[in-house]
Amino acid sequence: MSLNAKRAVAELKELRALTADENGAQRLAWTDVWLRAREWFATKVKDLPVEQHRDAAGNSWVTLRGASERCLLIGGHLDSVPNGGWLDGALDEIAGLEVLRRIATEFHGRPPVTVRLVDWADEEGARFGRSLLGSSAFAGTHSIAADRARTDRDGVRLENALRRCGVEIEKFPEAATEQKNAVAYIELHIEQGPVLERMDLPLGVVLGTKGVERHNITFHGQEAHSGSTPMNARRDALAAAAKLALEIRGIAKKHQDAVCTMGSVKTFPGIVTAVVGRCEVTLDQRDLDAEVLARMYHDAQEASERFAAEEGCTVNWSRLWNIEPVPFHPELIELCDTAIREISGTSHRMPSGPLHDAAEVSRAGIPTVMMFVQSLKGISHNKIEDTKEEHLEMAVAALDRLASKTIEWILKQ
Amino acid sequence: MSLNAKRAVAELKELRALTADENGAQRLAWTDVWLRAREWFATKVKDLPVEQHRDAAGNSWVTLRGASERCLLIGGHLDSVPNGGWLDGALDEIAGLEVLRRIATEFHGRPPVTVRLVDWADEEGARFGRSLLGSSAFAGTHSIAADRARTDRDGVRLENALRRCGVEIEKFPEAATEQKNAVAYIELHIEQGPVLERMDLPLGVVLGTKGVERHNITFHGQEAHSGSTPMNARRDALAAAAKLALEIRGIAKKHQDAVCTMGSVKTFPGIVTAVVGRCEVTLDQRDLDAEVLARMYHDAQEASERFAAEEGCTVNWSRLWNIEPVPFHPELIELCDTAIREISGTSHRMPSGPLHDAAEVSRAGIPTVMMFVQSLKGISHNKIEDTKEEHLEMAVAALDRLASKTIEWILKQ
Repeated sequence: MSLNAKRAVAELKELRALTADENGAQRLAWTDVWLRAREWFATKVKDLPVEQHRDAAGNSWVTLRGASERCLLIGGHLDSVPNGGWLDGALDEIAGLEVLRRIATEFHGRPPVTVRLVDWADEEGARFGRSLLGSSAFAGTHSIAADRARTDRDGVRLENALRRCGVEIEKFPEAATEQKNAVAYIELHIEQGPVLERMDLPLGVVLGTKGVERHNITFHGQEAHSGSTPMNARRDALAAAAKLALEIRGIAKKHQDAVCTMGSVKTFPGIVTAVVGRCEVTLDQRDLDAEVLARMYHDAQEASERFAAEEGCTVNWSRLWNIEPVPFHPELIELCDTAIREISGTSHRMPSGPLHDAAEVSRAGIPTVMMFVQSLKGISHNKIEDTKEEHLEMAVAALDRLASKTIEWILKQ
Repeated sequence: MSLNAKRAVAELKELRALTADENGAQRLAWTDVWLRAREWFATKVKDLPVEQHRDAAGNSWVTLRGASERCLLIGGHLDSVPNGGWLDGALDEIAGLEVLRRIATEFHGRPPVTVRLVDWADEEGARFGRSLLGSSAFAGTHSIAADRARTDRDGVRLENALRRCGVEIEKFPEAATEQKNAVAYIELHIEQGPVLERMDLPLGVVLGTKGVERHNITFHGQEAHSGSTPMNARRDALAAAAKLALEIRGIAKKHQDAVCTMGSVKTFPGIVTAVVGRCEVTLDQRDLDAEVLARMYHDAQEASERFAAEEGCTVNWSRLWNIEPVPFHPELIELCDTAIREISGTSHRMPSGPLHDAAEVSRAGIPTVMMFVQSLKGISHNKIEDTKEEHLEMAVAALDRLASKTIEWILKQ
């Protein structure tokens, strides 16, 4: 079989028919629909000259043994958010399958290096609020203690939901054995943003995943009657927060590709007749450069304190979460760039704002790169998530080129 | 009995002991505690040469008949918000009682004009969300249809709660007969704001109650991923709202005593990882001058549309409620000013941001004025609501002076 990108698109539609309802994809990890998606995928693989197994964290591996034990890993994830799209994660996996078929055929079942296709378990974290679960076990960055007692909306514990799927959280560390002989990791994904569409480009090279600083910020002022409190006698916590909401945009715009977002504002008492006494906001800051990220965090803190003082308020910060930037491998970035140019004529280098399993693989010290394909309107995690079919086909072809180039690169290591 | 301001303070404490718990006053209208407060008040009145009755809206009237049927009305309200203070409403009523005692004594039970003390039913509207209930029935501005089906938190209908207290909502219009022969209305109240305390003055003349424009404003932008959406590709509904939150302060500050408040901000989806797609805010604008109020409303609308356009958003306004300004009677304002100067040396003229029953009485065409006494820290509707006892005593004395001057004024009409 030679590469058949149209078949990949057809299989994506097949998966959608099997696992979506009128609200979108329902392949929530550790549910029956997700297990059905994985069973379907296993049937697609069973006639290839490969071995299949699940690792200790529930990641599903398809291994095409090569002349060398040294491995190229290709990854994706079949799980989706509830009411999700047809491409997020599934494209990566099904494009990888098509590439695996081509390699198996071209080398008569024995390529020069081993090629492994992995379906990471629970990339989305949509049910238990913990994304990159399977890939973090692989990378050895996972904490059993932090995650085992997480519960879903119905009160089901994470560890019990995993056990039902045959996964024991105590054994998660064993998933790190899958790192053995891995020399490079590649992953295709929809962009989930508007950049490529705005540039009218089908494909882009991902330079890495941005680091994230995520904080709760609370301004404390003085609740007061909206009718009896003169403007100059107010300590309005919302005013300080509003200044910060506007200021973070300037803080981000000082740096190429950086983003700062205030996604939530809560006002207390939050009634029409009271000056806001307390205002709780969230701040999410991302950049690929750790120094830029640290600068933006500092700038926002400094600004929040200045605005609090101006408004007679105080301010407190509380970190929700953070992760360092994960830059991808410079040589693989060049290979990816070349692969894209060969298929579409023009490439574009960009960081990824969203996290991906590739970040965990890279943190494990395995040279990694990702490729993005254009998302229509930049929309994802939604049933209207979409990409032009011609772009999907180009993405499969470009991933295939990248796989070939990476195999050659592995042979030179 | 001559005027005994200390007795009024002692009776306020007596009422507090009877009707407050560790969380504050609990004289919620149409409840047993409120009825108990009214029974207690009736015992205070029973040895005076007066008549007592309830009108069709549950307002409680104490009438000291004079040589003329023409009436001076003195008003207040014994009801409180839940977990309220000891002074809001009760001070007005108990100070009025003390004035009534002084007049009854001075004129041997027959003053030159009739003096009536009214305890308005349900000024606060805390249980059914409808303030000034009894006084609006008196004024004839009440709508039975709009209020009868209101329910409290437990689902009890307003009309049933009133019936339990012997009040039939169908008969509300009959309360307007109490207007007969009324020539002037005076009311003392705590300021519930910080103005007098900041000026270090015990007492002030109220020029009227401010008109109010109260609106919901919704900005619609585009929900987007906080990581994958570049700053220049966003349509951030929060940014437009934040600009308005800051702009309304300048709109208010153009006008003496005007206030504009954004009391509530709600963000949707309101999560840390999404640019705000929809932002719902409230706006409360108040001024004593109808033209100023209309100007501020216009300015805020214009600004909201400008900010929406700047941020690639749209904006919708929805009126929650409004009321016109109610200026008090110019001659009674002068009398009140003089009364205050006689007691404390210095007066101050100010509008009231909060509404009061006096606004309804004034809307009925009865010459009206109010007097404010300083509130400590401007705090009300809270168990820590307080006023210095020396100021309470001065307030009783000043109300008494105002009553005397108003009786003389009535005789000249």
